Amino acid sequence: MQTRIEVGILGATGMVGQHFIRFLQGHPWFDLRWLGASDRSAGKRYRDAMTWHLGVVPDTVSGITVDDCKPGHAPRLLFSAMDASVATEIERAFAQAGHIVVSNSKNHRMEPDVPLLVPEINPDHLKLIPGQQRARGWTGQIVTNPNCSTVGLTMGLGPLKQFGIAKVIVTTMQAISGAGYPGVASMDIVGNVIPFIGGEEEKMQQETQKILGDLRGDHIEPLTARVSAHCNRVGVVDGHTETVSVEFLSKPAQADLRHAFDSFRGVPQERALPSAPPRPVIYMEDANRPQPRKDAERERGMAAFVGRLRPCPALDYKFVVLSHNTVRGAAGAAVLNAELMYSEGMLD
Amino acid sequence: MQTRIEVGILGATGMVGQHFIRFLQGHPWFDLRWLGASDRSAGKRYRDAMTWHLGVVPDTVSGITVDDCKPGHAPRLLFSAMDASVATEIERAFAQAGHIVVSNSKNHRMEPDVPLLVPEINPDHLKLIPGQQRARGWTGQIVTNPNCSTVGLTMGLGPLKQFGIAKVIVTTMQAISGAGYPGVASMDIVGNVIPFIGGEEEKMQQETQKILGDLRGDHIEPLTARVSAHCNRVGVVDGHTETVSVEFLSKPAQADLRHAFDSFRGVPQERALPSAPPRPVIYMEDANRPQPRKDAERERGMAAFVGRLRPCPALDYKFVVLSHNTVRGAAGAAVLNAELMYSEGMLD
Amino acid sequence: MQTRIEVGILGATGMVGQHFIRFLQGHPWFDLRWLGASDRSAGKRYRDAMTWHLGVVPDTVSGITVDDCKPGHAPRLLFSAMDASVATEIERAFAQAGHIVVSNSKNHRMEPDVPLLVPEINPDHLKLIPGQQRARGWTGQIVTNPNCSTVGLTMGLGPLKQFGIAKVIVTTMQAISGAGYPGVASMDIVGNVIPFIGGEEEKMQQETQKILGDLRGDHIEPLTARVSAHCNRVGVVDGHTETVSVEFLSKPAQADLRHAFDSFRGVPQERALPSAPPRPVIYMEDANRPQPRKDAERERGMAAFVGRLRPCPALDYKFVVLSHNTVRGAAGAAVLNAELMYSEGMLD
Amino acid sequence: MQTRIEVGILGATGMVGQHFIRFLQGHPWFDLRWLGASDRSAGKRYRDAMTWHLGVVPDTVSGITVDDCKPGHAPRLLFSAMDASVATEIERAFAQAGHIVVSNSKNHRMEPDVPLLVPEINPDHLKLIPGQQRARGWTGQIVTNPNCSTVGLTMGLGPLKQFGIAKVIVTTMQAISGAGYPGVASMDIVGNVIPFIGGEEEKMQQETQKILGDLRGDHIEPLTARVSAHCNRVGVVDGHTETVSVEFLSKPAQADLRHAFDSFRGVPQERALPSAPPRPVIYMEDANRPQPRKDAERERGMAAFVGRLRPCPALDYKFVVLSHNTVRGAAGAAVLNAELMYSEGMLD
Repeated sequence: MQTRIEVGILGATGMVGQHFIRFLQGHPWFDLRWLGASDRSAGKRYRDAMTWHLGVVPDTVSGITVDDCKPGHAPRLLFSAMDASVATEIERAFAQAGHIVVSNSKNHRMEPDVPLLVPEINPDHLKLIPGQQRARGWTGQIVTNPNCSTVGLTMGLGPLKQFGIAKVIVTTMQAISGAGYPGVASMDIVGNVIPFIGGEEEKMQQETQKILGDLRGDHIEPLTARVSAHCNRVGVVDGHTETVSVEFLSKPAQADLRHAFDSFRGVPQERALPSAPPRPVIYMEDANRPQPRKDAERERGMAAFVGRLRPCPALDYKFVVLSHNTVRGAAGAAVLNAELMYSEGMLD
Repeated sequence: MQTRIEVGILGATGMVGQHFIRFLQGHPWFDLRWLGASDRSAGKRYRDAMTWHLGVVPDTVSGITVDDCKPGHAPRLLFSAMDASVATEIERAFAQAGHIVVSNSKNHRMEPDVPLLVPEINPDHLKLIPGQQRARGWTGQIVTNPNCSTVGLTMGLGPLKQFGIAKVIVTTMQAISGAGYPGVASMDIVGNVIPFIGGEEEKMQQETQKILGDLRGDHIEPLTARVSAHCNRVGVVDGHTETVSVEFLSKPAQADLRHAFDSFRGVPQERALPSAPPRPVIYMEDANRPQPRKDAERERGMAAFVGRLRPCPALDYKFVVLSHNTVRGAAGAAVLNAELMYSEGMLD
Repeated sequence: MQTRIEVGILGATGMVGQHFIRFLQGHPWFDLRWLGASDRSAGKRYRDAMTWHLGVVPDTVSGITVDDCKPGHAPRLLFSAMDASVATEIERAFAQAGHIVVSNSKNHRMEPDVPLLVPEINPDHLKLIPGQQRARGWTGQIVTNPNCSTVGLTMGLGPLKQFGIAKVIVTTMQAISGAGYPGVASMDIVGNVIPFIGGEEEKMQQETQKILGDLRGDHIEPLTARVSAHCNRVGVVDGHTETVSVEFLSKPAQADLRHAFDSFRGVPQERALPSAPPRPVIYMEDANRPQPRKDAERERGMAAFVGRLRPCPALDYKFVVLSHNTVRGAAGAAVLNAELMYSEGMLD
Repeated sequence: MQTRIEVGILGATGMVGQHFIRFLQGHPWFDLRWLGASDRSAGKRYRDAMTWHLGVVPDTVSGITVDDCKPGHAPRLLFSAMDASVATEIERAFAQAGHIVVSNSKNHRMEPDVPLLVPEINPDHLKLIPGQQRARGWTGQIVTNPNCSTVGLTMGLGPLKQFGIAKVIVTTMQAISGAGYPGVASMDIVGNVIPFIGGEEEKMQQETQKILGDLRGDHIEPLTARVSAHCNRVGVVDGHTETVSVEFLSKPAQADLRHAFDSFRGVPQERALPSAPPRPVIYMEDANRPQPRKDAERERGMAAFVGRLRPCPALDYKFVVLSHNTVRGAAGAAVLNAELMYSEGMLD
């Protein structure tokens, strides 16, 4: 039997860190052994260092003594759930010290030599790593996954890239779990919609262009499509629902798009990576699906659910896409990135 | 003191009928005296003919004996809250019999000789009436107001029509009160989003073009803009929130649009109609407004609230608009229509 | 390997029927082969006979041709999810015809010769069966499980019965999934509480006395405790939360009660029945637990979660209990009943 | 015309302070002129000193310069919305300096010489004031209103006090607005119930005994009834719903209780105080009422709504009571206290 790889989590006490812990339970390759957090938590047992928000603290981590987020005792492979206010320096310090930092934080996503991965769509962007290491003098590396609202959009658009994407207008209806804890005040969201999420629209617009962009030598040529996002918070616990209108350079038939969704498979599926859903994009026939409370948890939260593909009177076609924001949009995305890297021999 | 005008309601026992009753309480011009409903209710006292959903049945209607929906005893001016399954024939019969039918039903909205009014935007569409009466041989008439989701969109677009609207993409997040009673099952909407409302997108697209269209002689030339709607239901009680992206034929500056919102006034404001809000479109400065639970009830539910005007990377500009779906999107809309007609001398 | 037992469902197209189907997926003993429903559905494939509300219809039942609810082709062991309006006659007809009817319906629960089971608490009530068969001339039999709100209460009280229960006052905050589909209108429950559920309080009061009652020869002597229920509906999807105050005949110390909760095990645990939770009652230490959205799904929805045990200034002690209304309160309860019967040799 | 009385608010920037400001808009007697807050806010215009959560900041206060919470420039009559962490000292300092402090804070409620008022129930408790002033050497005074969950209970029990209350068991389902801002995290309450509110049960139990107690010379003899509270938070915006079981010393008929609710009037009604509802307790006949979203706002939020009076199998009778937690349970309660004091000549 295969040797399991020791892994750790940077920022293990926050909500995203907790999602990492939950998602890694029982992982066949990765063995969670190390938990890093702020000085305030360091030295405490994990169970005493945080308030757990996801049911019951798993026994496997409950008694681990939290370390501080400085290189030293951590395993080589680290998942980063660092808060944006501190992630820049800490992730760099670990990469500098030889660690493979697979990060969910936004801080390094848009740097030209940092892969921003959706493994089904742009696995070749991992080829930025040698340049990253060379330019920065790192023995380690930083690899990132997209913002939770970007993941669903790019998984919906990925299969359609072949038709030449010219314009995209997306409106999100985002779950509260994406905002951490305590996050959104109940007085703001019960029976309400908040039509604004700070910085979210810019992230969706830029990240989508990078993810759907093409590797040209040692850099990414962003997709030239014009992408516009309207981001909203709604009173849903898990699952971001997005309405999407797209204009294409070619003029594909609706059946072509539908076929593209149905037949879409990527490297994670070919290699049957442990966290890869059998089909990354699942088209739902019912007129009123996908729906976050009913569908987001399916396929272990790792697929994107698409529905309502139809002509758009203003652009060419429109559809709905749903993905699980704390799984495929955070912890699960990073773990799938690491699985892809493992399958590439990059963790050897 | 002015003589008050007797009015009645067709379809008085349903949810929309109840909203009419509530909205007409204390109206300075219109005196609600007659309530029509199906044979099942006719002959009963109103309080025994329905289950009231809006607090407490007003005393002024509680004891009225419900009539059936046949011309005979009804006053000349009637507000129609008829269900779409029966509105076509019944509204026609009343118009034939000389009644002025101010309808919230969808049935006649898209007929070429029926005004589909937003009084601030297209009051001149009332000039279709003589042709309607002539062509149909009616002494009465039918005038309609838009679907609840169309109202907010057209009030947001009305001030911008001057810049030449080429394309519109709108995503709605609609309240449950728009679906009547029992309407949406709680199992479908608690903590959920339903990305589909049957027939709603087509209504929004077509009605918007008609309302923003121009009267040419005896017919309406629809706005040539391409309009695309994505309609969603969310767990909000009252108030439809809509994100809107617009492409213009001219290239206005953002400040021009903002000025257009702020300075927008229509005939209802000029004539200070009783149900007209002082400003039909209210721009909110806060980045996270408007919000349905906090704003929809303001201005007695008769204004549209706009916010977040900003450039759209895919079209030209984008913004958020909110309106109260059962007030400005239903009962209040019809009453304002009747007030406009009164101010035109059409009720004399 | 053991032979699996063929089972069927009476009332398979409704919400409770769907919960049975989902709960029986992958069951080690019971093999779901037969689905019965009304004449309207009979003859159709299952997938065409209903609207599925629980994610995706399992492949194992999707293609089964629905039968009508008359004895003939059904397997001997049947789970009944019949609507109360028809359950009385249909369940009797099947019992008459030799079927073992394990019913979730309320109709026969309070009949003196019908066991109303919570397998951890009153497994000996199965001894009513011979008398039932004799008196009614049946070769089959009817066994029932409690109402969804009764289950949590009795599982909370069961461990405490030894201290002599004199009075119980319970207030429920019940999930909407307990009301079926379409069930509760969203306009009635979004951001609201409904302080009334028709017939629920009477059921809780009577069923609790029967379940906690003692088998005396061939009948059940109900618990003499006075039980009072206040039943409310809240905007929760799954999980009934109940606050309970209890007066005891003896005067146990708080530690005695706590020990009773912690050490409570029943026949299902001793025999490791497939659907039995390892611990039927789980006491949670955190001051603000149990909570329905966070805890109801744990232990596959089969345990009762208790918290906040403390003195009651008016009676003796008070606590909170939570249980999953569609699992332990419906389908899971009936399946556990059948497992208990199997382990008793009653299905041979 | 009567001279209006200048009033101020201690703690004007928090949620309770905002509720005071809103409730005092257009008050016929009290003229809001002064706003006090922490040093952090002092010196700023009110609109710049806080984030307003209740629609739009009223013009009448928007431009007022916030003062710090030290005696000096404040008017004689002050409403206190101070946070409990600072209210003790600050309220004392103002009372010492001659101010009449009508406080919503919990800090002084249970002190023996401080009136804890529900004006319809125990207006005579104001007679504690001379003793309070004498004992403490104050020229001013402190008067308090109950906790938001206590108000509904005591208004429901007040009319029944005549029958001799022996035991009370109450379960609350409390709105999120009672927790201030940001208050309850949305992740904790969307689709959930939290069966715990820190300190709430103790407050309800003790305050109820004091309010329903009798003035004996210079002190209050608490009601000897044993009161037990179970406090829960639910996803409701405004309005606390409470289920109540009561045991009486006498054995009144159900009709006696009903008559007591219907005929209940107090000093505020007799004197037609501006904020007094015509009937303080409104009994609702419908089996499923009162409900918070549908009823709490009625009567300007100042009445208690009672329903479902019926026998309790464990105690004697049970019923449901609803009251508006931020109006009758906070700002409105304090203003009604001040109106009572005015009508007693205590503000001269």
